[in-house]
Amino acid sequence: MTTLVDFYFDFSSPYGYFASTRIEALAEKHGRIVRWHPILLGVVFKTTGSAPLSSYPLKGEYSLHDFERTARFHGIPYKSPEEFPLATQSAARAKLWIEKNKGADKAIIFCKEVYRAYFVDGLNITRPEVLAEVASSMDIDGAAMIDGSNNILIKEELKSQIEIAMTKGVFGSPFIIVDKEPFWGFDRFAQLEAFLKNGKV
Amino acid sequence: MTTLVDFYFDFSSPYGYFASTRIEALAEKHGRIVRWHPILLGVVFKTTGSAPLSSYPLKGEYSLHDFERTARFHGIPYKSPEEFPLATQSAARAKLWIEKNKGADKAIIFCKEVYRAYFVDGLNITRPEVLAEVASSMDIDGAAMIDGSNNILIKEELKSQIEIAMTKGVFGSPFIIVDKEPFWGFDRFAQLEAFLKNGKV
Repeated sequence: MTTLVDFYFDFSSPYGYFASTRIEALAEKHGRIVRWHPILLGVVFKTTGSAPLSSYPLKGEYSLHDFERTARFHGIPYKSPEEFPLATQSAARAKLWIEKNKGADKAIIFCKEVYRAYFVDGLNITRPEVLAEVASSMDIDGAAMIDGSNNILIKEELKSQIEIAMTKGVFGSPFIIVDKEPFWGFDRFAQLEAFLKNGKV
Repeated sequence: MTTLVDFYFDFSSPYGYFASTRIEALAEKHGRIVRWHPILLGVVFKTTGSAPLSSYPLKGEYSLHDFERTARFHGIPYKSPEEFPLATQSAARAKLWIEKNKGADKAIIFCKEVYRAYFVDGLNITRPEVLAEVASSMDIDGAAMIDGSNNILIKEELKSQIEIAMTKGVFGSPFIIVDKEPFWGFDRFAQLEAFLKNGKV
């Protein structure tokens, strides 16, 4: 049995953000290590024929309400961003660059801080200066990160990771895989916890 | 404040079935009466531009797994039907006929029995004889019900009720509305319960 929890998310996904505030504590409680995988739902949706929740009639309006209500219900700080959803390839690439150059732990902190910047502080995380500022607050050279993130190797790495994620069945955010068992959605965390505890649901 | 809980569902929706096994007890606990509204997701999806879960690549396969796992997690009897999803206008019309001719209580029992026939006993609920058999088990004349269900007034009534549901924001199954607060999905029952208890989430 692996000791890993694979956590897939898009930086523009509120439910992915909610999951990001809980996944580390949950995994740690059950002796697991989390691997954080930013993905791009825009790419995934081309395969699945889906679209952002907020773009559907009726469902879109409901979703915006549900994001806020779910945050309140779980006591998670949340402010509806003015621009939503956003393209998140820059944030995802920056995460990969940090992982390669500063290590996995720093990359995880960066993910949490980017989510906070977008869903708590209301910053536009498509903007390089916003991402650079997040990096600077962690004692990482923001300009070097932005520059490095635009490297073709990083771009290809992200594409490749998303392809691999889809071959494992990932189609949404958050998406968690533990011992090949897939969980889609923050609302599956109770089942995820049961699985971590008992090895089955 | 109304004392009602409006419960919208499609007879072919596993999550709608799961909700149907819990909604009455939950509402009763908080002094509410449930109104059961069968809808046709096929009609709703024309407005929302959506499609059955099981028809999407990746998401479809996951959903079939999630239906079974969610049933196990909540201790609800469930057997994946061989034919899924099914057209459910006959079952929905039969419910309306029973409501008009035998009363709301009988209609609710009929809904539960149709769900059980499909998701526990594996019967094909598009077939008139299956619906007639469910009616007969409740001391309702099955042939009269099938005949009455095909009446143009019943057909128009169902169309009209689905239109009204959509004007209230209903776009999926199960969908619950309490005091204008909408809840989509069996996985929102914890939030629904908090709302019934506290008048807010």
